[in-house]
Amino acid sequence: MSTEALFGQVTLIGIGLIGSSIARALKGVKLADRVVAADLSPGVIARVTELGIADEATTDLAAAVRQADLVICCVPVGAMGLVAEVIGPHLKPGCIVSDVGSTKGSIVAQMAPHMPAGVHLIPAHPVAGTEHSGPDSGFAALFQDRWCIITPVPGSDQAAVDKLAAFWQALGSKTEVMAPDHHDLVLAITSHVPHLIAYNIVGTASDLEQVTESEVIKFSAGGFRDFTRIAASDPTMWRDVFLHNKEAVLEVLGRFTEDLIALQRNIRWGQGDQLFDLFTRTRAIRRSIIDQRQDTADPDFGRGRK
Amino acid sequence: MSTEALFGQVTLIGIGLIGSSIARALKGVKLADRVVAADLSPGVIARVTELGIADEATTDLAAAVRQADLVICCVPVGAMGLVAEVIGPHLKPGCIVSDVGSTKGSIVAQMAPHMPAGVHLIPAHPVAGTEHSGPDSGFAALFQDRWCIITPVPGSDQAAVDKLAAFWQALGSKTEVMAPDHHDLVLAITSHVPHLIAYNIVGTASDLEQVTESEVIKFSAGGFRDFTRIAASDPTMWRDVFLHNKEAVLEVLGRFTEDLIALQRNIRWGQGDQLFDLFTRTRAIRRSIIDQRQDTADPDFGRGRK
Repeated sequence: MSTEALFGQVTLIGIGLIGSSIARALKGVKLADRVVAADLSPGVIARVTELGIADEATTDLAAAVRQADLVICCVPVGAMGLVAEVIGPHLKPGCIVSDVGSTKGSIVAQMAPHMPAGVHLIPAHPVAGTEHSGPDSGFAALFQDRWCIITPVPGSDQAAVDKLAAFWQALGSKTEVMAPDHHDLVLAITSHVPHLIAYNIVGTASDLEQVTESEVIKFSAGGFRDFTRIAASDPTMWRDVFLHNKEAVLEVLGRFTEDLIALQRNIRWGQGDQLFDLFTRTRAIRRSIIDQRQDTADPDFGRGRK
Repeated sequence: MSTEALFGQVTLIGIGLIGSSIARALKGVKLADRVVAADLSPGVIARVTELGIADEATTDLAAAVRQADLVICCVPVGAMGLVAEVIGPHLKPGCIVSDVGSTKGSIVAQMAPHMPAGVHLIPAHPVAGTEHSGPDSGFAALFQDRWCIITPVPGSDQAAVDKLAAFWQALGSKTEVMAPDHHDLVLAITSHVPHLIAYNIVGTASDLEQVTESEVIKFSAGGFRDFTRIAASDPTMWRDVFLHNKEAVLEVLGRFTEDLIALQRNIRWGQGDQLFDLFTRTRAIRRSIIDQRQDTADPDFGRGRK
């Protein structure tokens, strides 16, 4: 075993977009002596073996975690409790158990009861992804320049938190520590409600009787197509997110709808100044996002121009 | 004068993203013997002259249209009536007057009264654009593979409609003929309401007291940043769109809100199957859009990976 690697064995459970991206990213850095990929699907494990992105690939979750110093659960939020229950009895003392889920309060509630004494549960969320799913869709640069939010729980060991932060930083991410509940509210506005309204507008469009689906598709470059990318994200993952971050999503959604009704009223009454003021204000936020390298400055995301 | 060009003189009025893209595209095809760029802003005209994207550039709209065989008005929807009033008396018989506005019913109502006998008013809308504005932001390939919707009015000369269609096809677009009212409904769902909800979510995010603007920006890669691109579009243009397509926007917005309230209820009552069904259905629409080359298949729009 190298004395330089941060971890001896890292085990990834669930090898989809995120799990396979971590596996790929680990090939380029000296973070783990050994990477084990585990997934309940034999098809996924066969593919991971073909891709050669892990030192070992198995459907046996218990066996996969026994020697692990870090376990990262990359399954849909709704499956985290089951995974914790399966692996809990097989974890070795000192192991750090983390995840990549988009909700944090629910994950703490699901996983903590199954963690044996001496194991460090430290949930985390790399805010990165694409609309594609599965082990073929991952890529090593996914976490570059993105933020990973770490949400320790009361009693979390600081050295373990620091080690997990160092892990994500080595994959190219910036890290921030936050309470689980605050994470869930922040992500409700920066991710969950945006996904919900994207799914919703695509649904509304396909249900309109006066406009054909063919017309919706043809003329989608007017803006609609942007929403279809987000609305092509993994259905299981996103169903779970909404069911497991209910309170924060409903809170932010209430604000969104209230603001939208006000805009609707501005339009009905021809109040152009209010519209203009909002449309000017929103431009500034885009500029800040680009300045902080969270998006490209290329027009139209640089789409189709390579 | 060449005998091969479709038009002798083409005059573009309003040299922003769209006007300057047409001017640039005209350099690569043999469509006009002479391209005149007109804009009321001396600053814009000075820049157009520097860029060298037109044969002549002037702030004098009347002079610009006198010899024109095709005039394309590329100004915000709310300014079309004024432009028509200014240029109307100076148009020569047989001239085709068109536009690129995102609403069509209102434009017909604004422009038709100012068109002298013998002039062909044929509104059109190239469904293409980016979030950037001004003469520097245009590029020749903007219309490639995009649809241009032509909305003739009762009595429109078929030969003139065909000629305008040939013009847009030569710029790389596909064309479709549609009634103005139907256009306005189709665009309400494929463009106008998507823009409104993008502006709205960005506004909601910046108004939340519990989440800082810094957090919204940092964690925007979770989905929010996609909306900020659309919400960075030209405020004047979009204010005018909403004021001039009020009926269709309010109709589609009513549907959107109704559907969103139903989703909100699904979340509140934990109805995961309904969420999953919608999230699966919306994926299919994305695939059709990609199959019909209206968007890139690259994950995340190919963003940042060139």
